Amino acid sequence: MAKLIRVNMKTQEITERPLPESYIGLGGRGLTSKIIFDEVSPDCDPLGPLNKLIMAPGILGGTSLSSSGRLSVGAKSPLTGGIKESNAGGNAAAKLARLDIAAIIVEQSADNGNIFVLVIANEEIKLVQANDLKGLGNYELVKKLRGQYGDKTGIISIGTAGELGLAAAGVAVTDMDGEPSRFSGRGGLGAVMGSKGLKAVIINDEGRSKLPLEDEEKFTKLAREIHNELKENATIQGYGKYGTAGLLDLVNELGALPTKNFSQGRFDGAAKINGEALYQTITQRGGKGKPTHACMPGCLIKCSNVYPDENGEVVVAPVEYETIGLLGSNCEIDDLDAIARLNYLCNDQGIDTIEIGAALGVAMEAGVIPFGDAEKAEKAVAEISQGTVLGRLLGNGAVLTGRILGISRVPAVKGQAMPSYDPRGVKGNGVTYATSPMGADHTAGNNVRGKNQHLAEGQIENSFNAQVLMAAYDSLGLCIFLGAVLNQKLDYVRQLVAAKIGSELPGDYMTRLGKSVLQVELGFNAKAGFTSAQDRLPSYMSSERLSPNNLVFDVPYEEIDLRLDNLRRDS
Amino acid sequence: MAKLIRVNMKTQEITERPLPESYIGLGGRGLTSKIIFDEVSPDCDPLGPLNKLIMAPGILGGTSLSSSGRLSVGAKSPLTGGIKESNAGGNAAAKLARLDIAAIIVEQSADNGNIFVLVIANEEIKLVQANDLKGLGNYELVKKLRGQYGDKTGIISIGTAGELGLAAAGVAVTDMDGEPSRFSGRGGLGAVMGSKGLKAVIINDEGRSKLPLEDEEKFTKLAREIHNELKENATIQGYGKYGTAGLLDLVNELGALPTKNFSQGRFDGAAKINGEALYQTITQRGGKGKPTHACMPGCLIKCSNVYPDENGEVVVAPVEYETIGLLGSNCEIDDLDAIARLNYLCNDQGIDTIEIGAALGVAMEAGVIPFGDAEKAEKAVAEISQGTVLGRLLGNGAVLTGRILGISRVPAVKGQAMPSYDPRGVKGNGVTYATSPMGADHTAGNNVRGKNQHLAEGQIENSFNAQVLMAAYDSLGLCIFLGAVLNQKLDYVRQLVAAKIGSELPGDYMTRLGKSVLQVELGFNAKAGFTSAQDRLPSYMSSERLSPNNLVFDVPYEEIDLRLDNLRRDS
Repeated sequence: MAKLIRVNMKTQEITERPLPESYIGLGGRGLTSKIIFDEVSPDCDPLGPLNKLIMAPGILGGTSLSSSGRLSVGAKSPLTGGIKESNAGGNAAAKLARLDIAAIIVEQSADNGNIFVLVIANEEIKLVQANDLKGLGNYELVKKLRGQYGDKTGIISIGTAGELGLAAAGVAVTDMDGEPSRFSGRGGLGAVMGSKGLKAVIINDEGRSKLPLEDEEKFTKLAREIHNELKENATIQGYGKYGTAGLLDLVNELGALPTKNFSQGRFDGAAKINGEALYQTITQRGGKGKPTHACMPGCLIKCSNVYPDENGEVVVAPVEYETIGLLGSNCEIDDLDAIARLNYLCNDQGIDTIEIGAALGVAMEAGVIPFGDAEKAEKAVAEISQGTVLGRLLGNGAVLTGRILGISRVPAVKGQAMPSYDPRGVKGNGVTYATSPMGADHTAGNNVRGKNQHLAEGQIENSFNAQVLMAAYDSLGLCIFLGAVLNQKLDYVRQLVAAKIGSELPGDYMTRLGKSVLQVELGFNAKAGFTSAQDRLPSYMSSERLSPNNLVFDVPYEEIDLRLDNLRRDS
Repeated sequence: MAKLIRVNMKTQEITERPLPESYIGLGGRGLTSKIIFDEVSPDCDPLGPLNKLIMAPGILGGTSLSSSGRLSVGAKSPLTGGIKESNAGGNAAAKLARLDIAAIIVEQSADNGNIFVLVIANEEIKLVQANDLKGLGNYELVKKLRGQYGDKTGIISIGTAGELGLAAAGVAVTDMDGEPSRFSGRGGLGAVMGSKGLKAVIINDEGRSKLPLEDEEKFTKLAREIHNELKENATIQGYGKYGTAGLLDLVNELGALPTKNFSQGRFDGAAKINGEALYQTITQRGGKGKPTHACMPGCLIKCSNVYPDENGEVVVAPVEYETIGLLGSNCEIDDLDAIARLNYLCNDQGIDTIEIGAALGVAMEAGVIPFGDAEKAEKAVAEISQGTVLGRLLGNGAVLTGRILGISRVPAVKGQAMPSYDPRGVKGNGVTYATSPMGADHTAGNNVRGKNQHLAEGQIENSFNAQVLMAAYDSLGLCIFLGAVLNQKLDYVRQLVAAKIGSELPGDYMTRLGKSVLQVELGFNAKAGFTSAQDRLPSYMSSERLSPNNLVFDVPYEEIDLRLDNLRRDS
């Protein structure tokens, strides 16, 4: 029987209860969002004691299906003021699932600035005071914790940015090498965790046998079929060589690569930072570098990488496309080594590379840092932990950076910075940015591989279809990259879930699931005061033409609003 | 026939039209707010070309009545996001009224960062390009302009803060000594003026005869009676000796003097910065100092002062109670010389002393500047013009300073910092802060001289009565201090207006006028997305007890909401 763990940080009381009837069949994002909707006051201070931080593996978490181990983390976001779910790979979610934990609800806040770690072992869950860990970056923290609690543990943690309550702070999850390199990066969930006084969750499932499945034979057979298809899929093979960085050429070609604070869509230095450059650098340097790397156990896609320096020592793992776009081209930095160092600084401090890259772009437009000056950018990003005024400014994200520095060209929606697809050049993503309850977020419904990205026509449906599917994948704990195979075979997913839980599911299970999750999230945001006025890209994107294709974002907002209303009412 | 002047900063076109029928009988705040309601889109960017800056003398502006020369300045506020009117004394409004100008509407924005001055002479109004004035502080600016345009002019101007678009920038008005020392300080109207590319308005009414009145004999007789009563009124006499600083002992005694970022209500150093200390310092130093000083022609109250240094040279004029409370006790600075220097820095840069004092208090709580460290505070305030990150942070006000520095105890409502009355100790003012369409603002309805300030009972009516009266006084161009006499004799005001315009007015003219102005303003804010969620003091004021009287703000919000709804519907 799946359990709901409730951790009161004020009293240090921990309770275990069977998952309530009404939550059975939910997991991942669907579960974190439903608990937030049910339990978190929409007008609470996101960094106050009344917010709650929820962690949940997906419905298929812990199974043998490739790429099923994503961990959803949710709360009211200090960045957007709305509901938030951000999920990460790594090794934590499968362990939680195998321990039969459906969700952990972290409530209230520790008194007197004390900090704790939550230790989850096979039969025991406890909070351990850990003030000696204050101020540690993620890497040193995780090294210490693995030394103490064993290197087979999965660790969910925050760095200094989360402790400082910065609105762009993320939550780190250890990867298969035990490095805190996978991130629930977006929306400031690390700051929420910090506000609770929780520095880390350490999960040990040693001795647990594998997850029971109602129809194991059927599940295994289906999973095997999917795995075979994954191996043969060209897109998946691309991920296995270039990782997400393979997207850079595609997006640059589309004229949608954020360049110089989203003022251009194509970057002169693209060839120095694209997938090929990354692959060549890693393979030529060798040493501890790995061009291909799985972020979670059993993943066949292996889109991650380990970036080495000239001596073959690890700089950071992984360097992702989003990071390259925001910390690279958006800042006119065309140096992979510098991008990797910035990436490390963000990971260690525990802060979102997308939000920081966007904030740097805005600060560069304001003249605080020259465009292209990687050294000054690194110095500024290193100030985040020091709590300097500049460090805190960047750490609170692009929108506040723009407001303080007097820059109105800020690429953000609902307070959250745009990922590495300028919505004027990938219009389907523009619709997603505008309407997702998460704020600007490509993972909420990415259309970059769709057709006719420069045309307004059809993008609303592209986006909404992707958003519905994504909300379902996020609830199942599945990596979106499985979509390359599964989007065409949604019935496989229905059958997998049915085989796991042993009950029949309707034919439109996936879309039903996705819609219901989105409706809960939209409902929370409405109660938090969001209106259609917030379902907009920044106005300059409707008037300022993006080179080289001279595009504006011209999907009609009236139609977008109507479609969103339909989703709200669709039952 | 009163005129409406429209100045298009983009085209430099200026049009003069008779005041439209529907605006006749309006003036000051009533007129600025009505024009904003009618012409400004509630969702426009406050610093974008679609916002408008309106300047208007009051209905009784330019008459012989004492203290009738306040200038209303209005726009959508970059600080609150709502409608804003802030008014100031000085010599400009009477000149506009004598030139028969009911309002100036400044529209659009100058191209290419050019800046202009608007020169209004007897028969000519023109825009003059003035890029050589860029970056000048108010004092040097006004000295230059008076040299060029004559020292009998009235000048409305912005300093560097307005040019930089900082949300706490104010609009300065010259006093009777020709110094830019009277401020429409609140809500960032200086930033709106800066965003237009307008550096100053220079008004010359030489050669104009006095304002025609329909029934001059009656007006003069009534004004004389009021003047006689003013001279004999004890409160007014107090203003004539100690100025507004006379309030400090009263508020400190009430336990409502903002101290150490609104964490205490009584200040140990009060005796060093109170009215008596100010009076003694000014009189003992002599020289160019003046303990009493009229801010506008014909004012009999003379609550202003000129603060001298040890050599008798002018430091700044005037040092007001609000400034002492926010830059003094709120920052634990008990040194009048330091407060006067900070005041000068704010005036010269053209930024609100209340907002900056509150922002400094928040920065001190964050540890960026030590409490009580006047030297570091002066250095930080001087950085505003330099556009440093810290300078821009403070210049954007207390709320953003708190958000960036991670301080949740921020004394503000609707984005605007509270003036020098902690609402837990002056509960009537708490109701005004919560409900005024202007955000936290004592001038919207001050109850400090009322009774039972520590009790919740009766404060809603006290506040709403004061707010309605204030909206009327602000529309007439009258200084609130006239209220010491006129609040008991509202019919005098009705008769004065009737004598000026030559028509009958209803017996409840003043309350009708005030209500109608508030309704327009509340209507704008509703369209801008404000809900009752914004009609709240910061939550800590309901839970954190204020020493020495251990008070919280406990006026029931349900009752406040009901009263506000009644006002909205009251016809």
